[in-house]
Amino acid sequence: MRGSEKQFSLFIERERKKIEHKLYESLNERQPQSLYGPGSYIINGGGKRLRPILVLLSVKAVGGKLSKAYNAAAAVELLHNFTLVHDDIMDNADKRRNLLTLHKKYDLSTAILAGDSLLSVAYEYLLRDCNGNTKIILSEFTKGLIEVCEGQSLDKDFENRKTVSIEEYILMIEKKTAAMMEMCCAIGGILGGGNKTEIKALARFGKNIGIAFQINDDLLDITGNENDFGKFVGGDLVEGKKTFLFIKAFEKARGKERQLLLKMIEGKGIKHDEIQTYKDLYIKLNVLNAASGEIKRYTQVALNSLKYLKEENYSRWFNWLADSLINRNK
Amino acid sequence: MRGSEKQFSLFIERERKKIEHKLYESLNERQPQSLYGPGSYIINGGGKRLRPILVLLSVKAVGGKLSKAYNAAAAVELLHNFTLVHDDIMDNADKRRNLLTLHKKYDLSTAILAGDSLLSVAYEYLLRDCNGNTKIILSEFTKGLIEVCEGQSLDKDFENRKTVSIEEYILMIEKKTAAMMEMCCAIGGILGGGNKTEIKALARFGKNIGIAFQINDDLLDITGNENDFGKFVGGDLVEGKKTFLFIKAFEKARGKERQLLLKMIEGKGIKHDEIQTYKDLYIKLNVLNAASGEIKRYTQVALNSLKYLKEENYSRWFNWLADSLINRNK
Repeated sequence: MRGSEKQFSLFIERERKKIEHKLYESLNERQPQSLYGPGSYIINGGGKRLRPILVLLSVKAVGGKLSKAYNAAAAVELLHNFTLVHDDIMDNADKRRNLLTLHKKYDLSTAILAGDSLLSVAYEYLLRDCNGNTKIILSEFTKGLIEVCEGQSLDKDFENRKTVSIEEYILMIEKKTAAMMEMCCAIGGILGGGNKTEIKALARFGKNIGIAFQINDDLLDITGNENDFGKFVGGDLVEGKKTFLFIKAFEKARGKERQLLLKMIEGKGIKHDEIQTYKDLYIKLNVLNAASGEIKRYTQVALNSLKYLKEENYSRWFNWLADSLINRNK
Repeated sequence: MRGSEKQFSLFIERERKKIEHKLYESLNERQPQSLYGPGSYIINGGGKRLRPILVLLSVKAVGGKLSKAYNAAAAVELLHNFTLVHDDIMDNADKRRNLLTLHKKYDLSTAILAGDSLLSVAYEYLLRDCNGNTKIILSEFTKGLIEVCEGQSLDKDFENRKTVSIEEYILMIEKKTAAMMEMCCAIGGILGGGNKTEIKALARFGKNIGIAFQINDDLLDITGNENDFGKFVGGDLVEGKKTFLFIKAFEKARGKERQLLLKMIEGKGIKHDEIQTYKDLYIKLNVLNAASGEIKRYTQVALNSLKYLKEENYSRWFNWLADSLINRNK
């Protein structure tokens, strides 16, 4: 590892600890325990803390002070966890990060309400870091929240539809995943005192890396290592999800191959012992490579936008971040 | 009806129409329909629009312009409806305002997500009316949101506890009901350009009228007219709710009477044909009068705080509003 890449890793490691502490603190002393206990369970249950890191890196990238952004960094993670708690209910998921999901650990009412309160504390924390720019920061945050609700709604819609086009899929992940990463980078840029060009460049980075990140997530479902990924390979197929891979495959497949894919749609998923058959079909139809190509393309768009940043040193950090996201195995 | 009381009624009628229109507009043209259709169903399904009216009256009371507060007025109603949608899931309620609740009309996932999106649009609308005072207004709003989550959590806790003290009950309704009405009045005062004393006076009015309003709600469950109230008499007893009446009765009851109340606690509710027995006990233990006394006391505290308002004319309007809230039958 080169010197400055090592420096980047140390930065991430150090900042992640600070974020963990801030998150712990955000719910720790609140009452009632019946509300914030479950909230703490999910918020202290791990995660990459990618979204807070995007905030902090964006602050740095425009030459701002990190000390002014830790509450905002906690806020975006609280918002993210709010979406996870409610999505897990909607997806009837049992596990998250190798722990029971909130509604399985407690019950439905507790999970709905704990999710709501994570969002409420997110706004409280965000407001702490806004001085003189509250309207623009809160507007960005709220736009991210609106988009993530719309994205989740589209995702649920897709479950009941026979076909989904790649364009519709991209719109969905733009809203469900990318909008929030876009918002994190924009907020970091604003808090760091960046100019309009810089903030726009950072937002563009966040959005495009978000799209790449989600397509990569779809790809990892097939190519990931079970132990690293914390889920089993082919989970999306079992659940009948219309991922990038599936939609691409459905576009290309004809005859018997198309019948096989239709079977997943109509059955709203497949059995575990059928995963290999579908994986083989994906390989035959070359959709894994198609996904890799799109991931590279969106990553490149993300990285290209960084040329507008003054602090060139941090462009390299974003490169490493992009790299760690795309070449991750979990 | 005296001249200025008539004027007050016309004001409420006219403003309610404007609020209805603004609420309709807030969700009408948004996509996806699968998200905002259900949101519109609840938001256009009626209601007193009490919270927006509190905002607007507070604007007037400090001599401000209503035109600057309609988005905020819509925002507090959107927030209120967010809480109703999620609370109805938690309470497993079938009906709301004589219509099916959202999760019964659609499904659980739709209701959770539609609730979330009502909150997101609430923030968007609130931000439209904030100029130069965004931080304080958003902080008040967020505080209201945090309190309402905490209040709902306490309310759910009470279901599983044997006894609840009057103090605990008051804390719960302060959070669940009164904090939001306090917030509405404070935000109206700020948007109207009131000074600190006025804003504090309005907030104090909102909080105390909110407590009175909720105790009155408990009272109406026993004394209300079934048709007007849209619920059947004694519903709280059937559901086993620890209302003001029940807690007061439990404080006073001894011997066989206490056994009867314990039966409701242990059975988590009573049967329909037992309602009259409990109602008779409430009358015997004088708890209906105790409730009326507390309603009057909190209403008086609320009204007393209004002496700090410059626009005396509007103090009278608040009097009429308080009167219409307390002497309502639904």
